[in-house]
Amino acid sequence: MGKGVTSKEEDYSQWYNELVVKADMAEYAPVRGCMIIKPYGYSIWEKMQAVLDNMFKETGHSNAYFPLFIPKSFFSKEASHVDGFAKECAVVTHYRLKNDGNGNIVVDEEAKLEEELIVRPTSETIIWHTYKGWVQSYRDLPILVNQWANVVRWEMRTRLFLRTTEFLWQEGHTAHATADEAIAETKQMMEVYADFCENWLALPVVRGTKTPNERFAGALETYCIEALMQDGKALQAGTSHFLGQNFAKAFDVKFTNRENKLDYVWATSWGVSTRLIGALIMAHSDDAGLVLPPKLAPIQVVVVPIYKHLEELENIAEFVKELTKELKSKNISVKFDNRDTHRPGAKFAEYELKGVPLRVAIGSRDMQNKTVELARRDTKTKETVSQDGLAGRIEQLLEEIQINIYQKALNFKTENTVETDSYDEFKRLLDEQPGFISAHWDGTTETEEQIKTETKATIRCIPLNNKQEEGRCILTGRPSNQRVLFARAY
Amino acid sequence: MGKGVTSKEEDYSQWYNELVVKADMAEYAPVRGCMIIKPYGYSIWEKMQAVLDNMFKETGHSNAYFPLFIPKSFFSKEASHVDGFAKECAVVTHYRLKNDGNGNIVVDEEAKLEEELIVRPTSETIIWHTYKGWVQSYRDLPILVNQWANVVRWEMRTRLFLRTTEFLWQEGHTAHATADEAIAETKQMMEVYADFCENWLALPVVRGTKTPNERFAGALETYCIEALMQDGKALQAGTSHFLGQNFAKAFDVKFTNRENKLDYVWATSWGVSTRLIGALIMAHSDDAGLVLPPKLAPIQVVVVPIYKHLEELENIAEFVKELTKELKSKNISVKFDNRDTHRPGAKFAEYELKGVPLRVAIGSRDMQNKTVELARRDTKTKETVSQDGLAGRIEQLLEEIQINIYQKALNFKTENTVETDSYDEFKRLLDEQPGFISAHWDGTTETEEQIKTETKATIRCIPLNNKQEEGRCILTGRPSNQRVLFARAY
Repeated sequence: MGKGVTSKEEDYSQWYNELVVKADMAEYAPVRGCMIIKPYGYSIWEKMQAVLDNMFKETGHSNAYFPLFIPKSFFSKEASHVDGFAKECAVVTHYRLKNDGNGNIVVDEEAKLEEELIVRPTSETIIWHTYKGWVQSYRDLPILVNQWANVVRWEMRTRLFLRTTEFLWQEGHTAHATADEAIAETKQMMEVYADFCENWLALPVVRGTKTPNERFAGALETYCIEALMQDGKALQAGTSHFLGQNFAKAFDVKFTNRENKLDYVWATSWGVSTRLIGALIMAHSDDAGLVLPPKLAPIQVVVVPIYKHLEELENIAEFVKELTKELKSKNISVKFDNRDTHRPGAKFAEYELKGVPLRVAIGSRDMQNKTVELARRDTKTKETVSQDGLAGRIEQLLEEIQINIYQKALNFKTENTVETDSYDEFKRLLDEQPGFISAHWDGTTETEEQIKTETKATIRCIPLNNKQEEGRCILTGRPSNQRVLFARAY
Repeated sequence: MGKGVTSKEEDYSQWYNELVVKADMAEYAPVRGCMIIKPYGYSIWEKMQAVLDNMFKETGHSNAYFPLFIPKSFFSKEASHVDGFAKECAVVTHYRLKNDGNGNIVVDEEAKLEEELIVRPTSETIIWHTYKGWVQSYRDLPILVNQWANVVRWEMRTRLFLRTTEFLWQEGHTAHATADEAIAETKQMMEVYADFCENWLALPVVRGTKTPNERFAGALETYCIEALMQDGKALQAGTSHFLGQNFAKAFDVKFTNRENKLDYVWATSWGVSTRLIGALIMAHSDDAGLVLPPKLAPIQVVVVPIYKHLEELENIAEFVKELTKELKSKNISVKFDNRDTHRPGAKFAEYELKGVPLRVAIGSRDMQNKTVELARRDTKTKETVSQDGLAGRIEQLLEEIQINIYQKALNFKTENTVETDSYDEFKRLLDEQPGFISAHWDGTTETEEQIKTETKATIRCIPLNNKQEEGRCILTGRPSNQRVLFARAY
């Protein structure tokens, strides 16, 4: 990333922070823990939104919008939810400012709200309050609604994209007539997220369920997808919650079922956030900058002309015009960087930093030979190819790059997922070869907490379709019938 | 809209309120003045967003995201902006809640913010604070950024879509090297909005500038588009502001220009909001429900089968399957309502209420005759047409409906735009034939304010390309060289 920049090996955390800023993805706002998502970063979020939104609609969901503010009393209605979410929140107490007469703006104490409003940290409460008015009979079910919104959680330690006070996300909130249907929905959305991560972000994930201790506040079961970053730390990439009848009971949402009896409605909620951009960066990038999977790259191909005289540029531009037309018909986004203020070398470095998957360089000799030079961002390999059939070759290369990035991440995950039956080795691995550690656990929250306190590792998930095998808890030696996945996590 | 429902003539205001709720567009939230946008209403907003977003990108803009919260002190930096916006705001004063020990959740007084945060009513201040870090030289300009976001203004009187405490909008914020370029941008975006309203919402608008008194707080010039609702009240549908160097000076944003001299950056901002959904409803709908222009209707065509026996339905369904395929290839959205829980008449009423532009009814006799019945929502006319070439006839009708809705609104606007030179007639018109009144005004804020106090009419705009003519102010008799457009407004 240029001079004086931290390498990934040297200081992974610093490398990430610098990369996010240098690649024009985001920067800190003047408000504690909040971020400004810059156009380049936001365009990746827009691509993610478009793909996910389409997946949600394909599975029958519609979008809606619920208020930013939630009355404080709503949080008291679901007992476990209040502990999880009503703590570190932004609280609105007043609705007016005034001039104090000395040219200062102060809060108008006369405009104090009777009941404080909480800036939503998540919207289960206000949505279930609303669903009460929408549901009377099983004919009104299911409700399959999603919301794209900003939420606020007053985090003490923040990190661009990974953990910010305000972040953007989507939150699905569905209501069903039966537990089975709600559970099926919960699993379906976990699969949608896994599909999205694997096939678009090129990010292999482990599907699993959370331990009771790590569950969403108010959920009976939390399904999650967990990914591994290049420093061996895990990152929770998405969650899907089966909420049982907890919120329906808290907000008195009953319906007449097919047997003409009153019952409480069954609920799910599920979400992914701008955190996925952090995951994308951390999983694939290198010391030269971002490495973006072609399917989510805002610019998939950049063309850099190499010339001395203006007529050479015109000649190249003519060719690029045709190429661009052909690539656009294949839905491939191209940028022709013909700025005369920057040298080719500076442009190469810039697009490496920004993670553009494929670079096409064309000089006058190339024009004579009817060739171009193609450079892949992921492998940094170059090849000189014919101008004939170039668009086809580019299309093919982009597909190869998408697969290669995924395969590389998958290999990394496989190599860094280790089984152990010894607590000493467990601790050594965490320090020396961090990654997922598959180990036996006695199933108690006490043990989970003790391991966390001693090692900072948490149980990321109980993998789905886990092999049943007899073993002994690495901490207590008590019997266990399956391994769970531990890691230090973001 | 069914039994016991208010008609437009009877009580326009009540008619609107009931229609918004009955047509499943939106409802009030449990938080004062906030709304819940229901899936049907939100799907119209999504269509609007998609079209506008594309128009913004075609004109070179990118999206970004800035924080929800703005430090209180930022509002003091631009003198006129503070008066306009730092008054009725949601103020965040604390960042934590706690349990008081008696099972109640209370604000933790120990978690009081040093500086209060304002929930953005508009983002000029935080964005210009940010631009300071983005601009050094003319080479960094222009910055052409837009944001899709929620904003909060603590309104005393609220109305679904038209005026709510929280609303959704887009706000463009651009930075330029010259005043001319910024003014050109301001005008361009007003034209984009006018184009969008006329060609998508089927809403004719008057393009103009605001009087100094009605300008955006901090702007040197505010361009606006004004539309006329069916009750003769005007509605401001969009604004585009030339902000001069006011915000650059307030946030110290300087750049080195082409002459290598330091200068302040020139600014614009422009926005439209979910208010446009209110305009759409108010401009076209009738006592039977919504009338949606086909280009923005979530469902463009509904097909209702009329049958007694199941094999009849199967026969019809077969035909509809083919029709749907053909319509989808023309990008026309179709819903086949084969619910057996509702009679055809109830379905007809439901889709009239929801403003579906075209209804296709097919019975067994139609199947024998190879015909269908087409019913237009806008004119309520029906025709029986052949099944041969049906998709083409539907496509053509949708285009006709779009044009007809626009033409009807245009005629209404023309008929209800009246010139007068007498203040008595002015007042009489406002009560008896409300609409736009074109009249001479002496150009002073005093006169404007007096007219407003006496009649509740405001100057909606000074139309662009206004005819210059000598006249006398309707209130004071002082000389004037052009007419301005007055109306009572939403």
